Amino acid sequence: MSVKKKVAVLGASGYTGSDAIRLLARHPNVVISALTANAHAGKAMGEVFPHFFALDLPVLTEWEAVDWAKQDAVVCGLPHGATQEIVAAVLSANPAIKVLDMSADFRLRDKAAYAHWYGHEHRALYLQGEAVYGLTELYRPKIAPARLIACPGCYPTAALLALVPLVKAGLVDAHDLVIDAKSGMTGAGRGLKLNTLFSEAGEGLSPYSIGTHRHSSEIEQEIGVATGTTVTVNFTPHLVPMARGELCTCYVRLNGATVDDLRAALERAYGHEPFVHLAKKDEIPQTRNVRGSNHVQIGVFADRINGRAIVIATLDNLVKGSAGQAIQNMNLMFGWPEATGLEQIALFP
Amino acid sequence: MSVKKKVAVLGASGYTGSDAIRLLARHPNVVISALTANAHAGKAMGEVFPHFFALDLPVLTEWEAVDWAKQDAVVCGLPHGATQEIVAAVLSANPAIKVLDMSADFRLRDKAAYAHWYGHEHRALYLQGEAVYGLTELYRPKIAPARLIACPGCYPTAALLALVPLVKAGLVDAHDLVIDAKSGMTGAGRGLKLNTLFSEAGEGLSPYSIGTHRHSSEIEQEIGVATGTTVTVNFTPHLVPMARGELCTCYVRLNGATVDDLRAALERAYGHEPFVHLAKKDEIPQTRNVRGSNHVQIGVFADRINGRAIVIATLDNLVKGSAGQAIQNMNLMFGWPEATGLEQIALFP
Amino acid sequence: MSVKKKVAVLGASGYTGSDAIRLLARHPNVVISALTANAHAGKAMGEVFPHFFALDLPVLTEWEAVDWAKQDAVVCGLPHGATQEIVAAVLSANPAIKVLDMSADFRLRDKAAYAHWYGHEHRALYLQGEAVYGLTELYRPKIAPARLIACPGCYPTAALLALVPLVKAGLVDAHDLVIDAKSGMTGAGRGLKLNTLFSEAGEGLSPYSIGTHRHSSEIEQEIGVATGTTVTVNFTPHLVPMARGELCTCYVRLNGATVDDLRAALERAYGHEPFVHLAKKDEIPQTRNVRGSNHVQIGVFADRINGRAIVIATLDNLVKGSAGQAIQNMNLMFGWPEATGLEQIALFP
Amino acid sequence: MSVKKKVAVLGASGYTGSDAIRLLARHPNVVISALTANAHAGKAMGEVFPHFFALDLPVLTEWEAVDWAKQDAVVCGLPHGATQEIVAAVLSANPAIKVLDMSADFRLRDKAAYAHWYGHEHRALYLQGEAVYGLTELYRPKIAPARLIACPGCYPTAALLALVPLVKAGLVDAHDLVIDAKSGMTGAGRGLKLNTLFSEAGEGLSPYSIGTHRHSSEIEQEIGVATGTTVTVNFTPHLVPMARGELCTCYVRLNGATVDDLRAALERAYGHEPFVHLAKKDEIPQTRNVRGSNHVQIGVFADRINGRAIVIATLDNLVKGSAGQAIQNMNLMFGWPEATGLEQIALFP
Repeated sequence: MSVKKKVAVLGASGYTGSDAIRLLARHPNVVISALTANAHAGKAMGEVFPHFFALDLPVLTEWEAVDWAKQDAVVCGLPHGATQEIVAAVLSANPAIKVLDMSADFRLRDKAAYAHWYGHEHRALYLQGEAVYGLTELYRPKIAPARLIACPGCYPTAALLALVPLVKAGLVDAHDLVIDAKSGMTGAGRGLKLNTLFSEAGEGLSPYSIGTHRHSSEIEQEIGVATGTTVTVNFTPHLVPMARGELCTCYVRLNGATVDDLRAALERAYGHEPFVHLAKKDEIPQTRNVRGSNHVQIGVFADRINGRAIVIATLDNLVKGSAGQAIQNMNLMFGWPEATGLEQIALFP
Repeated sequence: MSVKKKVAVLGASGYTGSDAIRLLARHPNVVISALTANAHAGKAMGEVFPHFFALDLPVLTEWEAVDWAKQDAVVCGLPHGATQEIVAAVLSANPAIKVLDMSADFRLRDKAAYAHWYGHEHRALYLQGEAVYGLTELYRPKIAPARLIACPGCYPTAALLALVPLVKAGLVDAHDLVIDAKSGMTGAGRGLKLNTLFSEAGEGLSPYSIGTHRHSSEIEQEIGVATGTTVTVNFTPHLVPMARGELCTCYVRLNGATVDDLRAALERAYGHEPFVHLAKKDEIPQTRNVRGSNHVQIGVFADRINGRAIVIATLDNLVKGSAGQAIQNMNLMFGWPEATGLEQIALFP
Repeated sequence: MSVKKKVAVLGASGYTGSDAIRLLARHPNVVISALTANAHAGKAMGEVFPHFFALDLPVLTEWEAVDWAKQDAVVCGLPHGATQEIVAAVLSANPAIKVLDMSADFRLRDKAAYAHWYGHEHRALYLQGEAVYGLTELYRPKIAPARLIACPGCYPTAALLALVPLVKAGLVDAHDLVIDAKSGMTGAGRGLKLNTLFSEAGEGLSPYSIGTHRHSSEIEQEIGVATGTTVTVNFTPHLVPMARGELCTCYVRLNGATVDDLRAALERAYGHEPFVHLAKKDEIPQTRNVRGSNHVQIGVFADRINGRAIVIATLDNLVKGSAGQAIQNMNLMFGWPEATGLEQIALFP
Repeated sequence: MSVKKKVAVLGASGYTGSDAIRLLARHPNVVISALTANAHAGKAMGEVFPHFFALDLPVLTEWEAVDWAKQDAVVCGLPHGATQEIVAAVLSANPAIKVLDMSADFRLRDKAAYAHWYGHEHRALYLQGEAVYGLTELYRPKIAPARLIACPGCYPTAALLALVPLVKAGLVDAHDLVIDAKSGMTGAGRGLKLNTLFSEAGEGLSPYSIGTHRHSSEIEQEIGVATGTTVTVNFTPHLVPMARGELCTCYVRLNGATVDDLRAALERAYGHEPFVHLAKKDEIPQTRNVRGSNHVQIGVFADRINGRAIVIATLDNLVKGSAGQAIQNMNLMFGWPEATGLEQIALFP
């Protein structure tokens, strides 16, 4: 690697942005060329995220102050809604830049679906059409040559990796999918909210957006693509008193298939993947196995109810659920080995 | 109350035993007359549970050393398997004593079911037949005059309170019940196990006994009683990094009913209950609402999947899920107001 | 008790206010007659603190809307600075009302000290002069007949209970006191701050206000009263990832005394106290022993450095460190047994 | 690097062993050639530490089964007491092997001190004499050519890095050192102990070994070396409900020096160090800043007590406090850049 690629991070004061910085700062082919956080412009990263105290990072600026023509790629960790116009502006300043967006703004393929779930018309419709859904393992051929990747959120990444190979193979009923999801608190972001205070969130468990969470739209879209039909899933998330981690317990109805059929289908789908792993028969996926890493662990279990099974997937919501997947896609787009800079082993305990 | 009843606690060195002591020590009609923990006989309770340092409690003895003829009731917090023979001995020493058992030993009505789930023949079969299943709200008339109460565990208490009124009224399909349960770590007991160490259990979430947990037998038994038929449920528990708390997210298929029908049925069942509460429409049950209290909170939510709904119940596994329910039953058996000594408000934060 | 006293809680949406409600709602001699939280006026308490869902409590109002003439006492959980003028207004509306203030506004006896530590002149100087410092065990005779009690914060309560009997007896050097304090997150309040988010505060420990915390002024004032001289203490607090709890590790230099002398002095001071307990020689004070209770546990330990010792005190910052002490003082002022309504046993685990 | 060095890890089933594996598995110059854990011989590492599921690691064996002649180095994570004889056997099998010991067995230079603190005569006295105390920043010239390194524990590493430059320069009184230490739960090891269960250790803080902890012997030894005199320090550790992390709050008496003098001395000592960092004036060291990394952060603060100051050091007890320091020393011994394989950025949140 003679010349390193210049990568900017938009939204460097949030958790997905900071995890992108953690990974990019040790990526051998990359130099972090700009960091933006409009509310913190002028500050050092160490003031916003003290754990970066020992790194030499660019000072935070407003995103408008970046010379986009000089960047090779941008990892975007801005909130949904705000993202679409900024990405449009960045691409207009530098049409050749590669955009790895971690927000929800470009994930929905259908403009009506976007308007329904996000409450307003999309403000960069042409980009919505161009964006490629960035679930690496499912869309590699489309991601590699693309310019704008809509990296899926943590919930869809876990649920889709567990379910798509099964519905695609017709092994499970696509119209009876129950996904009980559990997420760590970083999934709720770094904004100041009462329910994410330590004293409110610790030592307790809360369901939220019961059966109505926005991210179910992505799951339904991609299960729909896999089956060629419109589906509705139950997706009910719960906040768990841990910082990182995402685990989906998926309850599926079998179309005459066995648990071994399910395992075989997942093995076919992921047997050669560097980051997606089918758990051995006696192995239970748990969030601790993947914390801080880009790995996903999937297990299949028999249900005592006749004709049903349980599929469990776990990942780190900030890595394979956000920043790690963005970098995995970036590696693909630059033609680098896909695992470059993503070799971190889970930090346990 | 002229004369207080003498109550012994068996298994005082475990979490259910200690929570029974916490409640009994402030119960106005009761004196704690004996505490046993065979492995700690001779010690003060403050050596085994330092948070009792300011209480004046009996010294721990072996259970064999108690003069059972002098006790009016016993709350039993011993492990399953060990309990049945000890309870038989206690009842043989004092046939008039009231036994509140918090173990699983007398919960299953069917001896074959017991042998299947617990791996050995029951060693006190005549008592298995006599024992009354101690889910207070469902079995009050049988509990009041009984001698031996098999208090249900935390998982069945939460799941059954949520589901029995619905299956009994024929509102939901008894043959398609998916119960995704989340429990705090005290549910795993005070025994020394690697997976319950702070460093192993903290900052992570683990499913376990996926679809195969023993307590599903109690749920199936009682749903079966409610419907008059044999049912199999999916029950999948998860360990959550919190000490106390239990929350069951139940995914049900509607028999033509609406979410409002479900709410109405639960309101009919629990409208006058002191401890079981139907959440208002915008209220989300969460474990923090009940920590340290005997309350149960149940919510009903629409599923976006046609013909399905989500019912969520939460309780404190050591109170309504163990010691609190035992004392609630004891109050019934002694003819005291049912909430006596159980007025604790949830401790939050 | 024929007629219950009417008690209002000001600042019911904060943690000290809500813990006062938890305790008052079960106090046998009290009825909660008004709850105020100006930002939440019109809401039910269950909307602001969902764990009160099963209690029948007054709707929240603005403090100005309370008919103060009809209240017998008020427990005030407002922020410092805001409190002084509101308390002045309440006392002006009803000069006979008993005020239990949990803020810092009336704790400092010296107006210059107040201005120094809080950055502005006191706005109700005559009340500053009238207020009695509400550390129950030290000032009972003054508290009982008083009208306005300045209940000390959690840090001073722990530190002073540990140290005052020792400095008073001349056993330790009042000019070489190092107090290393550790507090749970509720001590930082319910306001929205980045450093109290679960993801920021969990799994980590932070010192703050190192050697400069405001509450050291109360400690210095009271040590000064005890010794009749001006003292400066080192007081360095640390935020610990737990919701409740306060522990002060005090490093003292002995004036020729022994550890046994220290224990004897503390035993003399607290031997008959209902809430302050000298730990036995092999007992280690820890926050879990007092969580949710009004108890304080104090231990004395030898230092291997010649002529030094370590004194450790622990309490629940929201109970003996705030709301519990307020109610203990209220009991004194109404002539009730001091432990009325404060019999809660620590909730463990 | 043409040929990788073969490194074995002894005690692979403990936390220091597993963190050594996490680091060595990504070390570019190393191949993990053997893993031992006698109680788990024959198992895959993924059975003992499931988070290694995606790594290809040697099967666990008994330490006696390793062909020591084929190893270049060994990182030893065995308990103290057991270590000394095993290290002797390993060195006898291969006198050229480099030993990085993370236990306490070879840290004390004086045989009487060892016998005093560990309760038995040392069983490999000649090695005790040979071993080099492995606090990298202080003993680089001795470590590089050595064969057996006694890597210091987490407490001494933090305390000594904070204090040695100050006592050496005569800026602080070596005879009045108070070190209040706070440690995460992994510091208590992976053995099954009641006080390290999640339900016992969570949501609370406990001091232990108050003023008498074994590791104070290392601190006293090294302060003694720095000053050329015998010293006694106060060292009081506290268990904090977090998995990793170590923070020492050191209260020092100034020998006429100022806080700026202290900062200057630390800057001189560590200005060029890759892993030890003096915090800026407004920066507060906290454990989150170093979790999972080999970094140490040290801050200096004025005390309001005349002539005193507060020095705070934080590190990750499993990295710079154990495995990271071992590998840092190994890098030195093999002549590699000292930070090789230790570039991990702190994982936050």
